[in-house]
Amino acid sequence: MAYHSGSYTGGYAPSAPPVPDSQGSPQQHQPYPPPNYYYGAQSSYGSHGHSGFPPGTHPEVIRSFQMVDKDRSGFIDESELQQALSSGYQRFSLRTIRLLMFLFKNPNDSLRIGPKEFAALWSCLGQWRAIFERFDRDRSGKIDATELRDALYSLGYAIPPSVLQVLISRYDGGSGRKVELNFDSFVECGMIVKGLTEKFKEKDPRYTGSAMLTYDTFMSMIIPFLVS
Amino acid sequence: MAYHSGSYTGGYAPSAPPVPDSQGSPQQHQPYPPPNYYYGAQSSYGSHGHSGFPPGTHPEVIRSFQMVDKDRSGFIDESELQQALSSGYQRFSLRTIRLLMFLFKNPNDSLRIGPKEFAALWSCLGQWRAIFERFDRDRSGKIDATELRDALYSLGYAIPPSVLQVLISRYDGGSGRKVELNFDSFVECGMIVKGLTEKFKEKDPRYTGSAMLTYDTFMSMIIPFLVS
Repeated sequence: MAYHSGSYTGGYAPSAPPVPDSQGSPQQHQPYPPPNYYYGAQSSYGSHGHSGFPPGTHPEVIRSFQMVDKDRSGFIDESELQQALSSGYQRFSLRTIRLLMFLFKNPNDSLRIGPKEFAALWSCLGQWRAIFERFDRDRSGKIDATELRDALYSLGYAIPPSVLQVLISRYDGGSGRKVELNFDSFVECGMIVKGLTEKFKEKDPRYTGSAMLTYDTFMSMIIPFLVS
Repeated sequence: MAYHSGSYTGGYAPSAPPVPDSQGSPQQHQPYPPPNYYYGAQSSYGSHGHSGFPPGTHPEVIRSFQMVDKDRSGFIDESELQQALSSGYQRFSLRTIRLLMFLFKNPNDSLRIGPKEFAALWSCLGQWRAIFERFDRDRSGKIDATELRDALYSLGYAIPPSVLQVLISRYDGGSGRKVELNFDSFVECGMIVKGLTEKFKEKDPRYTGSAMLTYDTFMSMIIPFLVS
């Protein structure tokens, strides 16, 4: 099977251990949630802290959310999410933002996310940033296909090389030239792999590596990923 | 099962019968391949006419291809395809062009298509144009969700309403407002549904409506659709 048995906790980025090596990061000055935050965010995922944020949420995360939630509705839409994340990370493409919105929003909710989901997303991105920097060995701010494969593997995803090639070709602008991904594209790639793998695992609860899918299920699993 | 047994020939647009009702089309002045062309293109699919086009290929199709194949390589890339199709149809978005390229190119070939594939694509678009116009009852040049559902059904695809909703939401720019699709978006939607359904059917040769998929197969089936 393609995803190794160790992959499941790793696969859920919010529950993955924080990666130490984010030293020397160009983003270093920016607020990364403290390690205990990850567990805070996760263990209290069901509960509500003040303002709807899980206890232990880094104040910067709350600030970033409230800064864009101007009407204090407690929810932000995709353009507000784009703005909120740029304070802690960078300005992500709308394509990536839509995918993040889809993957992190409450499934029963429309196209908006609240404090809990925002905190979980911020935490996930913090770890992915650290992983990106760990595999961006020359600190170029970009990673190539091999580094992406290693990075995805460290997140618990072992995808077929042929799939990786097609996935990467998405970023060569049809040129066929060697691709290097910035953090935005890395997050998009990673979230696609993570999201599809999680979907598949729902249908393969005993991790046999195979799943029986009806046509309706198959289509319903995939189409949302085409929306971004 | 979601796709009805009548759907298979309908699903393969190039082998579907030409749709009569393309009268009153705004595109009427533009060259549609004559009906016998469809069968010509299909029955002689394995053979090569002069210049690599199937016998019976409409001269306008050959002209459109050769007009952009400036180096006479016999192959065109995505931007050339975009240009070639604008003569017979319209300027499609690069996103749609990439999907068409992926679905129609020779699987063993890189990101380029030759005469045979171009002829098949042109033929397919001719029929989809006719179907679009048949369901665009008010001739607005746009179709709504219900009309899309009916149009896809007439092509042989019965997709779950929930899937259709998500698919359509792709075109509302996150506004959540009622969506109307132009021909470009219709082709993109339709090709996604067609492509994914054909992929699924490969794994469900007896059309039971269910398929056993490995993780690798699942990922390999889907990722290409995210490239466009």
